[in-house]
Amino acid sequence: MRNDWATFGADLHLDLRGTRLRAGLMDALREAVRGGRLAPGTRLPSSRQLAADLGVARNTVADAYVELVAEGWLTARQGSGTRVARRADPRPAAPEAGADESATPPTAGPARDGTVRGGPVPGGPTPSGPVSRGPLPGGLLPSGPVSGGPTPGGTAWRPGGGAAGRVAWRRAGAPAYDLRTGSPDLASFPRAAWLKAYRRALTTAPNEAFGYGDPRGRDELRTVLAEYLARARGVYARPERIVICSGFAHGLMLIGRALRGRGAKAVGVESYGLGPHVALLRDAGLATPPLPFDERGTRVEELPSLAPDAVLLTAAHQFPLGGALPPDRRTAVVDWARATGGFVLEDDYDGEFRYDRQPVGALQGLDPERVVYLGTASKSLAPGLRLAWMVLPEGLVDEVVAAKGAVVDWMCGTPDQLAFAEFLATGAHDRHVRAMRLRYRHRRDQLVAALAARAPGIRVGGIAAGLHAVLSLPPGTEGAALRSAAWHGLAVQGLGQFRHPEALRTLEGLVVGYGTPPDSAWQGALHSLCGVLEGLDGDRDPEDG
Amino acid sequence: MRNDWATFGADLHLDLRGTRLRAGLMDALREAVRGGRLAPGTRLPSSRQLAADLGVARNTVADAYVELVAEGWLTARQGSGTRVARRADPRPAAPEAGADESATPPTAGPARDGTVRGGPVPGGPTPSGPVSRGPLPGGLLPSGPVSGGPTPGGTAWRPGGGAAGRVAWRRAGAPAYDLRTGSPDLASFPRAAWLKAYRRALTTAPNEAFGYGDPRGRDELRTVLAEYLARARGVYARPERIVICSGFAHGLMLIGRALRGRGAKAVGVESYGLGPHVALLRDAGLATPPLPFDERGTRVEELPSLAPDAVLLTAAHQFPLGGALPPDRRTAVVDWARATGGFVLEDDYDGEFRYDRQPVGALQGLDPERVVYLGTASKSLAPGLRLAWMVLPEGLVDEVVAAKGAVVDWMCGTPDQLAFAEFLATGAHDRHVRAMRLRYRHRRDQLVAALAARAPGIRVGGIAAGLHAVLSLPPGTEGAALRSAAWHGLAVQGLGQFRHPEALRTLEGLVVGYGTPPDSAWQGALHSLCGVLEGLDGDRDPEDG
Repeated sequence: MRNDWATFGADLHLDLRGTRLRAGLMDALREAVRGGRLAPGTRLPSSRQLAADLGVARNTVADAYVELVAEGWLTARQGSGTRVARRADPRPAAPEAGADESATPPTAGPARDGTVRGGPVPGGPTPSGPVSRGPLPGGLLPSGPVSGGPTPGGTAWRPGGGAAGRVAWRRAGAPAYDLRTGSPDLASFPRAAWLKAYRRALTTAPNEAFGYGDPRGRDELRTVLAEYLARARGVYARPERIVICSGFAHGLMLIGRALRGRGAKAVGVESYGLGPHVALLRDAGLATPPLPFDERGTRVEELPSLAPDAVLLTAAHQFPLGGALPPDRRTAVVDWARATGGFVLEDDYDGEFRYDRQPVGALQGLDPERVVYLGTASKSLAPGLRLAWMVLPEGLVDEVVAAKGAVVDWMCGTPDQLAFAEFLATGAHDRHVRAMRLRYRHRRDQLVAALAARAPGIRVGGIAAGLHAVLSLPPGTEGAALRSAAWHGLAVQGLGQFRHPEALRTLEGLVVGYGTPPDSAWQGALHSLCGVLEGLDGDRDPEDG
Repeated sequence: MRNDWATFGADLHLDLRGTRLRAGLMDALREAVRGGRLAPGTRLPSSRQLAADLGVARNTVADAYVELVAEGWLTARQGSGTRVARRADPRPAAPEAGADESATPPTAGPARDGTVRGGPVPGGPTPSGPVSRGPLPGGLLPSGPVSGGPTPGGTAWRPGGGAAGRVAWRRAGAPAYDLRTGSPDLASFPRAAWLKAYRRALTTAPNEAFGYGDPRGRDELRTVLAEYLARARGVYARPERIVICSGFAHGLMLIGRALRGRGAKAVGVESYGLGPHVALLRDAGLATPPLPFDERGTRVEELPSLAPDAVLLTAAHQFPLGGALPPDRRTAVVDWARATGGFVLEDDYDGEFRYDRQPVGALQGLDPERVVYLGTASKSLAPGLRLAWMVLPEGLVDEVVAAKGAVVDWMCGTPDQLAFAEFLATGAHDRHVRAMRLRYRHRRDQLVAALAARAPGIRVGGIAAGLHAVLSLPPGTEGAALRSAAWHGLAVQGLGQFRHPEALRTLEGLVVGYGTPPDSAWQGALHSLCGVLEGLDGDRDPEDG
């Protein structure tokens, strides 16, 4: 028993130093019960014995036992010791009770709970457990978090993939390094500056700011945003044409509904892009044919023959391929919209980040009556704020507001809106973006240099802007590269998951989100990536050919 | 040429000092192209020449040209110089680029603007202008704000009323006093306590809190909320069954979709209620038959013959009529749900506020597998936070999360979620609710006393709980009362606007939201209301009979 327990602890890479000892031990015990390693009725070692085996204080173990008894995982009876509870219906992967058990300030004391209600679950399996607060146990993670959950690029969503929501909140096993796209470096969120803006906003807000409000969003924010977008992105933006939404997808859903309401039938989308976005358009009742592309980007010159009612474009920095739509095509797509009454939906997701020259101005500036501009704070600041905006042609404002519905539930809270207005108006946003631009550019340079040194055969593309690069791979190697990455504990995406199912061409490569890791994990992630690519030589996989 | 260009620069008030030279020049050039001053094909002066004319460095001009070529405004060809791009359709009255180019820190300078675009607007008239920040002009308001915009009860929305969205953000003319329902006293928002919670939440949040997250909402909040709901509302709530949403309507939309996805066809609704909520269910493809009622509330005993798939009930405090569903009917509706596999959707919008005895516990506690509990911070704290939650039967969790969609855009920002968790965990929420309960009860008592003194013939109902009362009026007088109120500058709602169009019975009365006015306006509002009611004697209107 002694040795088993010690091994058990070691196997799980339990980090048994510091203040989180008890929580780590509890997690490990729960996991062992859940996984069946500790069968119902099993008698556990005494707290004294286990404490000695693990080299921790006896109280730590005793306390953990008490908590787990309270949660229903264990039972304790005088004379019979501590045993794994006998449960009515031991299920293989039961949900665990929310996890942080530290005795320090009782924020969020978990409901002591543990009983799992039996019976079949009509809606599918229960979640595999809550996302744990704070650093994950196990020592696998360098220090920063893996941005689990549904980053747009974080999981291989496909249009219409019904299980997406469920997949999203399962953390199957955290990778050691995360180079998936979709998230900025969350460790760099400017907490102090944001808090300052929030404090000022909350202090000076009129009372009515706490009520229901304009479904377009707070006027204060729309006013400052109009100025910012004109200055930073060349957007023609008047406050009354701006609608604040709680994310890009929300905006896209609204414009999709508005277009459908006008009788639109199809929105052309890029051959490579984000499936969930395409799915939203389909949900609105629109067809989403892929637009052909070549090495210069989307072939907008073919729009007249395809004849969609609108097109969705990442013109400044194609996602995921990384190029900017060339000038003649920018002009051509606007001309097409004018000539046909079509609309261009411009997804300007990372327009602030361009490294080698000034940002490419927004397409919207070319014709504000034919281009719907969609921007977000998710890349420039943080996705957690749920702040995005659209700048609409005058004639679409009412229709989009109507699509939003009579009750303004789909809106970022007004204090956050006011805080963002303050953040923009005081220049804090500019400062943050400048600092992040330097940081991301530095990472990009390191990525390029590391690949040149260790995987010189790999072509790196899409590096002029944004938070990701594309590493082109020879045909038939993407699958092998992804498997190798998984083996290395590296979360990274292949181009395949972004391919429109009906796209005419297929590319292979890795999409590397170099904005994602915290600084402390960046070098490790880079090293891991290079290891994957070095190993690719002669590793072509016939399955993927 | 020389002079033209210099003039051109001067005309546009180009600020050619500081670091924003190039941006200013680019804006001016874009504007000139847009406005038609620079026709397609026009050859621009060389960068050297224009730089000399403007007294700026040549690189500034050259860079601006390069950028504008990249953006598609200009073309550059060897030997042909730089020209304005030829575009299909130069437009007469082009919008101007939103402008503030000053080098000093931009504090929300309004976009320079003024041009109104001509031509008919397909979607209807444009909004009458942005909602102004701060106190409303006109001096009508005593001091507090009128909660303009779409409070659920704020405007006379009807199910399917298509123009609701548009109406909502128009503020036709502010009344002097506002006794409409739907909003708590916004002046009482606990700014300092909330800020304290927010600060602590923001300071202690793990980095991943700023990223995309669990579509059910932050685990920290769901954990504390489970404890709170169990304690304060008798809800059986486990964190993994809670889904945070950005308002009650959002939750209702999700559950409506989930039920529809299971094949549900009809959700029975109360004969008096909120039209927009009913409209959301209809949007989800559900029929919404009204449930019959008597003086004891909704006649749930008739559910077996009506046979809906679910019912939407305000069991603790019927909105707007004000009664609590009596115990036998509480049991009966849960029994019906059990027997038929139906669901009860419990709208617990103001459950915290009950004055004369302990709050009526949530119906959900009777059967967590058949009752969907929906709660909100909109009444207990503030609608502006966009914070609400649902507690789901186990089998519905996955379906509701799937209905939420693959991308978690419809969620309160994570900092606010964490702040609310902190606010709950530290007891600040309890303190606030207690204080507000006293305040609202005091107002209720004053309302009852004032009416007893000045309009003794009026029966006041629904006063045991919540933020509103119902003043019963004799048949044929509601219309006259509303007209009189409007004449007095008093915003108040009649029962008529809450009546389901197919309801079998019709009641007349005024719904008085006594939580809405700030303290400073309360006595005036009360006085105004009594004046309206006093004038009703002998003022029966044959039109409304």
